[in-house]
Amino acid sequence: MRIAFLGLGIMGKPMAQNLVKAGHEVKVWNRSSGKSVDGAHSASSPKEAARDAEIVWLCVSDTKAVEEVLFGDDGVIGSLKAGAIVVDSSTILPDASLKFAERVRKNGADFVDAPVTGSKVGAESGQLIFIVGARAETFEKLQPLFSVMGKSAVRVGANGKGLAAKLSMNLMIALTYEGFAEALVLAKKQGVEVKPLMSLINQSMVRSGVVDYKAPFVMARDFSANFPMRLMHKDIRLMLEAARQNGVKLPGLETVDKVYESSAREGNANLDYAATLMTLEKAAGVS
Amino acid sequence: MRIAFLGLGIMGKPMAQNLVKAGHEVKVWNRSSGKSVDGAHSASSPKEAARDAEIVWLCVSDTKAVEEVLFGDDGVIGSLKAGAIVVDSSTILPDASLKFAERVRKNGADFVDAPVTGSKVGAESGQLIFIVGARAETFEKLQPLFSVMGKSAVRVGANGKGLAAKLSMNLMIALTYEGFAEALVLAKKQGVEVKPLMSLINQSMVRSGVVDYKAPFVMARDFSANFPMRLMHKDIRLMLEAARQNGVKLPGLETVDKVYESSAREGNANLDYAATLMTLEKAAGVS
Repeated sequence: MRIAFLGLGIMGKPMAQNLVKAGHEVKVWNRSSGKSVDGAHSASSPKEAARDAEIVWLCVSDTKAVEEVLFGDDGVIGSLKAGAIVVDSSTILPDASLKFAERVRKNGADFVDAPVTGSKVGAESGQLIFIVGARAETFEKLQPLFSVMGKSAVRVGANGKGLAAKLSMNLMIALTYEGFAEALVLAKKQGVEVKPLMSLINQSMVRSGVVDYKAPFVMARDFSANFPMRLMHKDIRLMLEAARQNGVKLPGLETVDKVYESSAREGNANLDYAATLMTLEKAAGVS
Repeated sequence: MRIAFLGLGIMGKPMAQNLVKAGHEVKVWNRSSGKSVDGAHSASSPKEAARDAEIVWLCVSDTKAVEEVLFGDDGVIGSLKAGAIVVDSSTILPDASLKFAERVRKNGADFVDAPVTGSKVGAESGQLIFIVGARAETFEKLQPLFSVMGKSAVRVGANGKGLAAKLSMNLMIALTYEGFAEALVLAKKQGVEVKPLMSLINQSMVRSGVVDYKAPFVMARDFSANFPMRLMHKDIRLMLEAARQNGVKLPGLETVDKVYESSAREGNANLDYAATLMTLEKAAGVS
C-alpha cells in the first residue's frame, strides 16, 4: 500500500521501517530534519507525504503536534485523498482525538486512534500491541498493517476508545509500580532482606508484568530512562483531564500525580518513571 | 512432633488438619468453643494445649488476641517448655510481634513470625507461602512443618521481618487492585468495551496475579467475600501504623485507606475488598 508515516521518534521510526520491510511504499516525514527510514522516501511536509497515500499514519508527541500535522500549514488535510485512512498512534486526549476524527471525516477520509503498548524494543521487533478505536470495517482493512508492526491489535470501540483504553492501561502501570515502590520502601526501612522479598513477590499473586519488567532495573539501581518519567507524567495528566471531563474521581492516580510532581522537582523527570522510588526513599530516609 | 495449634479460623483449621494428616500429634484450641480438627485432641485453654508441646503454632485475628493467647490467664506462657518454638501466623504489627518474641525468649523458648499468603483454598490444599522472620537455625527446624502446610517458606530476616514483608506484599495487592478499579471506571465511563479491554490487559505488561484472580469475579459482579474488605482494611491500618513508627510516607496507601473508609461507610465492609470498585463507580455514576 502507499503509506505516509509522520513522526520518526523512538516508536515511529522502527514502525515505519517495518512497513518498508513488508514491501509497502512508504513516504516519511519528521518535524525536525535529519531523520529518515531506509527504503522510504523523505517528504518535506505532512502535506507532501500524504499526497496519494492510502494510509496516513501518525506517531507524534502530543495533542498540539497531531493538530499541527493534520490541520496546520502544509498539513495532511491539504492533500488527503477521499477514501484514505488516517491512523493516529500518538497518545493524546480521547476527546481531542474524537474532534480530529470528525474533521478528517468531513474530508471524505476515515480516522482511527491506535495508540500502542510495548517499548522501543517492541516497536523494533514488530511486537507492539495496538489499542484501537475505529469503525469495525476500517479496523479490518488495517489488520495487515497492524500485523506488520505488532503482535496484536484489539478494537475496544469507536473513535476515541482506543485512547481511553490506552490511558486506563497506563493508569494501571502507574499504580502497580507505585504499590511496588511503596512496599519496597516500607519493607527496607523495617530491615526486610530484599532478595528473599523479591523471591516471595515472584512466587505469589502480587507478581505483575510491571514488577517483572522493572524490578531488575530497580535492584541494579539503574534508573536510566526506558519509559521516561516526564512522558508517564504527561500521560497521567491526560488521564486526569479525561477523568475530569467525564466526571470520574481517581483518588489513587491523583496521589501518584503528586508523587511524580515531587520527583520531577527533585530533578528526576528525565529518568525512568521507576525513579519515583527514589523520592519515596528520600522521604523515608532509606536507599 | 507434638504440636499445639491455637486458633481454628478460616486459615488455622485446615493448617492444623494438614499437620494431623502428616502424622503429627496435634492439640488444638479455639477461643470460641465448638471447633475441632479430626484426629486432634481439643484442649480447654492455650496453656493446656501448650503443655509438653515442642511447637506452639498460633493463627488468630489480631495483636490483642496473640497477646491474650500467649500471656493472658491460662496463656501459653504458663506451660511453655524451654526449647519449644512458638510460631505465629497471625497478621499483626511487626513491632508488637517483636516484643512478644522477646518475652517468649525470656522463658527459654524461641519465637518465629510466619504470616502466610494464599487463600482458604491454599490453606486446605497445603499450598500456602510462609513469610518468615526467625533465627536461621530455628527456620531450618520448622521446614518439615512449613512443607506440610505450604508450598514454600522464605525467611526474610530476624523477628518481625516476616510481618514487615507480609504487610508490604499486601500493600502491593491493595494498590494493584486500586489501579485496576480506577482504570476500569475511567474506561467504562468513556464507553470502552470491557471484554476487549480485559483481553488487552491479559496480553500486556499490566497483567498481574491480583487482576488474574479478581477480574473474573468483578466481571461477574460477584463481590462476595473471599478476602473480606474489613480484613484488608485492618491490614492497611497495620501498614500505615508500621509506616508511622518507622518514619515512612506511603501516599498511595493513605489514599487507598480513604477509599476503603468510604466503601465501609457505604456498607461494603463484609464484601470482598474488590467491592471498593463499587465505591469508585458510584462516585463516577457508572456501574
